[in-house]
Amino acid sequence: MPEWRKDPLVERWVVIATERGKRPCDFKVPVDEKKEGRCPLCPGNEKETPPEIIAFREQGTRRDTPGWWVRVVPNKFPAVRVEAKEGVRRHGVYELMDGLGAHEVVVEAPDHDAYLVTQNNRQFEEVIWAWRQRHLDLRRDSRLKYIHIFKNFGQTAGASLEHTHSQIIATPMIPVDVREELQGMRRYTQATGRCILCDVLDQEMAERQRVVTQTDKFLSFAPFASRFPFETWIVPREHQHDFGEIRPDQVPDMARVLRDTLLRLRESLGGPPYNLVLHTAPVNETDTMHYHWHVEILPRLTIMAGFELGTGFYINPTPPELAASTLREQEVFCLPPVMEHAQREVTRYV
Amino acid sequence: MPEWRKDPLVERWVVIATERGKRPCDFKVPVDEKKEGRCPLCPGNEKETPPEIIAFREQGTRRDTPGWWVRVVPNKFPAVRVEAKEGVRRHGVYELMDGLGAHEVVVEAPDHDAYLVTQNNRQFEEVIWAWRQRHLDLRRDSRLKYIHIFKNFGQTAGASLEHTHSQIIATPMIPVDVREELQGMRRYTQATGRCILCDVLDQEMAERQRVVTQTDKFLSFAPFASRFPFETWIVPREHQHDFGEIRPDQVPDMARVLRDTLLRLRESLGGPPYNLVLHTAPVNETDTMHYHWHVEILPRLTIMAGFELGTGFYINPTPPELAASTLREQEVFCLPPVMEHAQREVTRYV
Repeated sequence: MPEWRKDPLVERWVVIATERGKRPCDFKVPVDEKKEGRCPLCPGNEKETPPEIIAFREQGTRRDTPGWWVRVVPNKFPAVRVEAKEGVRRHGVYELMDGLGAHEVVVEAPDHDAYLVTQNNRQFEEVIWAWRQRHLDLRRDSRLKYIHIFKNFGQTAGASLEHTHSQIIATPMIPVDVREELQGMRRYTQATGRCILCDVLDQEMAERQRVVTQTDKFLSFAPFASRFPFETWIVPREHQHDFGEIRPDQVPDMARVLRDTLLRLRESLGGPPYNLVLHTAPVNETDTMHYHWHVEILPRLTIMAGFELGTGFYINPTPPELAASTLREQEVFCLPPVMEHAQREVTRYV
Repeated sequence: MPEWRKDPLVERWVVIATERGKRPCDFKVPVDEKKEGRCPLCPGNEKETPPEIIAFREQGTRRDTPGWWVRVVPNKFPAVRVEAKEGVRRHGVYELMDGLGAHEVVVEAPDHDAYLVTQNNRQFEEVIWAWRQRHLDLRRDSRLKYIHIFKNFGQTAGASLEHTHSQIIATPMIPVDVREELQGMRRYTQATGRCILCDVLDQEMAERQRVVTQTDKFLSFAPFASRFPFETWIVPREHQHDFGEIRPDQVPDMARVLRDTLLRLRESLGGPPYNLVLHTAPVNETDTMHYHWHVEILPRLTIMAGFELGTGFYINPTPPELAASTLREQEVFCLPPVMEHAQREVTRYV
């Protein structure tokens, strides 16, 4: 018998096919065609992007030239813009406003053919530092209410550039999905005095059925009401509402568990397309301490169709218990932990 | 400058690229590979589906044999099942229940190669009668709270069978997307005494910028805050909360405007994949009179990626005004309005 499961944070029910769960071999993982032509994100082509906002680069190298290992630039075709004006206008029954916001690209490594996961932990840490630094800078614009950090991997998941990268879109309103999580978490805290996601972590650590991997500071697990096959969440084990407040001692752990999880997905499924989204408390808002930030990795092995788009509910053919045991038992190879630049003195904070 | 636009029903903001809107020629419309093998939905293969629930068929023909022009069968691989038990269980912090519900397939024509739109209006009417009849029957099960009628067209939109068909999934809870519309509509009615979608229709009829096509009883238009390029809604012009209450005099109009809209999409874009969802008031619930039912046609020309999946907001590269004028100005061919079976005496209500 299939099962309806409810997300503990929001009003989202998911049908889990518990009987004959789809395993990795049941999915056809699309293979992207290699793109021809010059890559605007490669070292040497820095002039093809707008001027860099920040870069972690070797000392003595100049802005917008090679020598960086992580580089953040404005999106050349931004969905939203910082030059726009604030303020909602009415047009009859409708509301609209200028396309205010920020849209940036985080180039996660210089090597065009690098996957994020085949970089070492240290490179991953640097990406997290870049995310954090942009988060802290963007929130200084009091017109912005949310900073959305995300990554599209593979054409099926919406990646239009091959070169490993993530994106940041800051918006002048709280996204509806984050608002709903915020409200759900607030209700739970008001009712119990505890945090729902802290309680979820406790239960997952005790049951271990849905755990993928863990470190001292982070847990990676397949959520009880997973929307997608092999969906995995990465959550800090201590309550922390705001990704911007991640501490230096948490970063290496986060890099390790994130990379380990993505490696397991890649080894189990053969490089599936995925979206990675970082959910954190809204910025420039009060009463957000009950939020608990986390990363959601959403593999795109199924198609969202008329059921999902019409209801907001999902049908998931792979029970999270099966997904977690597959990923947990997957052997992963390890890369040497230290890359060249990591041993040099670097200017990380430009 | 791009524009943020808010959906009038729910808290959903969409970025509309107003400057260089993407036109039909800017989209690569996928061409599905023709499938080999026997089609379980074709006449003669009736034994390959579970026994039919209803069929509109020629008098004297037997159940589960040819002679039908619309046929409804249980889904052979149902996501949810009527045999399941009601009642939410707890598992620690989580909630779950048996996979209660109904999952049916509406075979919309006997001809394997028919598109729904190349059928005539009368065939389309028959499909709407089948939807209505199943809606009215399913709601008699008081455990069910919503009857979701939808159609996936094209592999990119999730269609796994080529033969023209739609689906019905009835659920024991109100889908979150419908609940949000319901709440938004209720708030507006409480504040103004009017229906928001009635007011939207008035404004659209007055402005005409986003109108695609209309009849006496239905309006087809590109919504102000369209999530998808060429998204089109079809709404009854008189306030009606419940699709199940559609009257005989509305059915031919609905068939005409629905078919006309889908034809325009097909002629403009070359048969794009789409999802069609019918949003109507929940069943077996009180206080739903302020709802206004409607059909949403969601072409799948863009990819929902990390922005959409992480925020619930959308980026739409085609302004609805451009989409509507393209569709409005599209010439459409007409098929002869009468098919053979339509002139016979038929058993429509089995």
